[in-house]
Amino acid sequence: MEPVKIGLLGLGTVGGGTVTVLTRNAAEIARRAGRAIQIAHAAARAYDPARISGLGDIGRISDDAAAVVADPEIDIVIELIGGYSPALELVLAAIDNGKHVVTANKALIATHGNEIFAAARRRGVMVAFEAAVAGGVPIIKALREGLAANHIEWIAGIINGTGNFILTEMRDKGRDFGEVLAEAQARGYAEADPTFDVEGIDAAHKLTILGSLAFGIPLQFEKTFTEGISRIQAQDVAWAGELGYRIKHLGITRRTPAGIEMRVHPTLIPHRRLIANVDGVMNAVLVKGDAVGPTLYYGAGAGALPTASAVVADVVDVVRALTTDPTNRVPHLAFQPDELSDTPVLPMEAVETAYYLRITALDRPGVMARIAGILGEQGISIEAINQKEPAAGDTHVPLIMLTHRVREANMNEALDRIQALEAVAGEIVRIRMEGLDG
Amino acid sequence: MEPVKIGLLGLGTVGGGTVTVLTRNAAEIARRAGRAIQIAHAAARAYDPARISGLGDIGRISDDAAAVVADPEIDIVIELIGGYSPALELVLAAIDNGKHVVTANKALIATHGNEIFAAARRRGVMVAFEAAVAGGVPIIKALREGLAANHIEWIAGIINGTGNFILTEMRDKGRDFGEVLAEAQARGYAEADPTFDVEGIDAAHKLTILGSLAFGIPLQFEKTFTEGISRIQAQDVAWAGELGYRIKHLGITRRTPAGIEMRVHPTLIPHRRLIANVDGVMNAVLVKGDAVGPTLYYGAGAGALPTASAVVADVVDVVRALTTDPTNRVPHLAFQPDELSDTPVLPMEAVETAYYLRITALDRPGVMARIAGILGEQGISIEAINQKEPAAGDTHVPLIMLTHRVREANMNEALDRIQALEAVAGEIVRIRMEGLDG
Repeated sequence: MEPVKIGLLGLGTVGGGTVTVLTRNAAEIARRAGRAIQIAHAAARAYDPARISGLGDIGRISDDAAAVVADPEIDIVIELIGGYSPALELVLAAIDNGKHVVTANKALIATHGNEIFAAARRRGVMVAFEAAVAGGVPIIKALREGLAANHIEWIAGIINGTGNFILTEMRDKGRDFGEVLAEAQARGYAEADPTFDVEGIDAAHKLTILGSLAFGIPLQFEKTFTEGISRIQAQDVAWAGELGYRIKHLGITRRTPAGIEMRVHPTLIPHRRLIANVDGVMNAVLVKGDAVGPTLYYGAGAGALPTASAVVADVVDVVRALTTDPTNRVPHLAFQPDELSDTPVLPMEAVETAYYLRITALDRPGVMARIAGILGEQGISIEAINQKEPAAGDTHVPLIMLTHRVREANMNEALDRIQALEAVAGEIVRIRMEGLDG
Repeated sequence: MEPVKIGLLGLGTVGGGTVTVLTRNAAEIARRAGRAIQIAHAAARAYDPARISGLGDIGRISDDAAAVVADPEIDIVIELIGGYSPALELVLAAIDNGKHVVTANKALIATHGNEIFAAARRRGVMVAFEAAVAGGVPIIKALREGLAANHIEWIAGIINGTGNFILTEMRDKGRDFGEVLAEAQARGYAEADPTFDVEGIDAAHKLTILGSLAFGIPLQFEKTFTEGISRIQAQDVAWAGELGYRIKHLGITRRTPAGIEMRVHPTLIPHRRLIANVDGVMNAVLVKGDAVGPTLYYGAGAGALPTASAVVADVVDVVRALTTDPTNRVPHLAFQPDELSDTPVLPMEAVETAYYLRITALDRPGVMARIAGILGEQGISIEAINQKEPAAGDTHVPLIMLTHRVREANMNEALDRIQALEAVAGEIVRIRMEGLDG
């Protein structure tokens, strides 16, 4: 049988890894797929021929991406350029030309996926994007296929390795965010501009995709609430630890009677939960289905070879489905395109969580009563209070509080009022908490 | 489009769960699959009509399993009878009649899978068995599809929930095996005859399947080394803990230059590994691929609804592949049937691991030197020794040793000689150790 012909766009980290995997494991992949897979035509803007030739087998190579997506010999286009443009134009052109597409581009799928999938449907081609979430971990396959029997209740994921590395280092070494970020940048775990990672935008792209797959709604990146980890302090990590919790930067999506929660934020979780023990640059996604209960998927969320693992698995999937009637293929967003629902995504104010609060207050009678009174008026009940010793000569003490679940809107109102108290100094720290137990 | 018609064999725990899931989530499953799925005909040997009617929608029901597999209306037969006979005969008859088969029967697949898959191939039908390993966790899909780009290096799994529950209780409560087993039986986590679970036979069935999927070899249950947990003592659990390890009953399969290891046995693993923190009845499978690195899949390994989750996911997969050319379907054992390899499964004597040893020896000069000398002659180097205090009035002390990696044959020879020493009392305890780090 003829080899399947691949057109590859982008020969950076992941592109190089894809060439390496397809070359090194060519025989084993063909033993599984039943067909050889061959990179027939590649394009990269600026490439070093010496480095590229060391990676593995590529048929033709140039800097002309448009030629790759127009090449009549190509069956499947792999898009590994990243970003929005020209990735979007190239993907749409490939689809127009009747080619299947595999991409690792989470930003593109989260923001332009609806348009891309509609185009693919019209043209009868597949767009596969396993590498867009949690790198080599086959979480998209698990949601679209492995858990197809379930009514998904919620998902909570550590889906940004840089953020998880920083939080792990902060905990292990008692260091502050800025210090650890600098080290992560020096070690190549964080970009020179770390905004995408530490402010949660990358995680929000991935969560947007997971939410659509779980609940059968169109991709709605703009409705995903996003809060980063840059304001987390070493003392909060330590106090969370004393109370039996770890702080993780989670992407959470949950089905409620009122709508679907989509939110990325630092989260206290009980340290005995398996996902609380996922450390360093590793990713993990915890999925709660009504039949299967909680399941967890763990592995490297980034890197050349782990991401290439997912890209190449997608290629094998596409090869297997080439002869399948398009209506019988796995739908892009897990549900048949005509069966997507318009269930609303909830604004953050309507989300219920428990909270960790750190309030720096004057150490004098009546202050605690005043704070507790305001919380009570907003229907917020306190699960635990921990008043720390004041530093020598300091008239303020940190109050650590854990609350029961309450609507974010009520908490916002309470915190505005507490913050305005004369006895309260500095900014109140508020970190959401999740039990992840049901 | 016409609903897909299911014939269901067996209405016990998992059969009942399957009816429940297909009924309760019918609309959501159809939104994913693009087709309704209907249990048109079911058979169970002895059934209580009142219980069954409470489970959900079943077309016809009788005690005649042969009639179900012969029913011309049926597209897919789900076999949930368990055991070897009549499950084997019914599955082969269903295949002969051109029906696709979904089964949760690990014993059947591990021991008769080669024959069943050959028959299915001749007839051009699919046999799906996701529920046979780790219940609702889509580990078979991960190995066959999600990790298809990888050269798999090894797999280590907690694949028997009963055994993991017992070991977890022994550790948490410092209790001995017999006591905890009795409690597990009382709580319904262990069978009246617990042999299959605690002696590792059930885990060996599952490991046999995982090894074939990972390495492209025929199923060879008879070559899987199996050691149970019934001889693990509370003191070894405690001493392992002191040394920074947990004891887990693992199924391990590994590719080596000489052949493939297939072994189920209690194993010390570092407590910081994620899989060391998988407790209670939960299952987890850790897979090391050359591209993706380590990935882990966690969830409920048994129970009505978790197992039904996998069964129904298989049904959806089969429905999607109905129109696919048989040569393009996912191969039963991950590799194309003509591409299976004859790589040998290694005898246990040829396997290399590290070891935990507990030797009860006379507390007098020279004994330790003698033991260390014998180990040295077999090329066994000691990583750590821990001599415990003797109990009051006891002239024997427990020596706890951790060794570096060595061939099992050498360790057997050394232990035979040490056991024969006059200064050594009682049976030497030997538990294998794995770092699971590369």
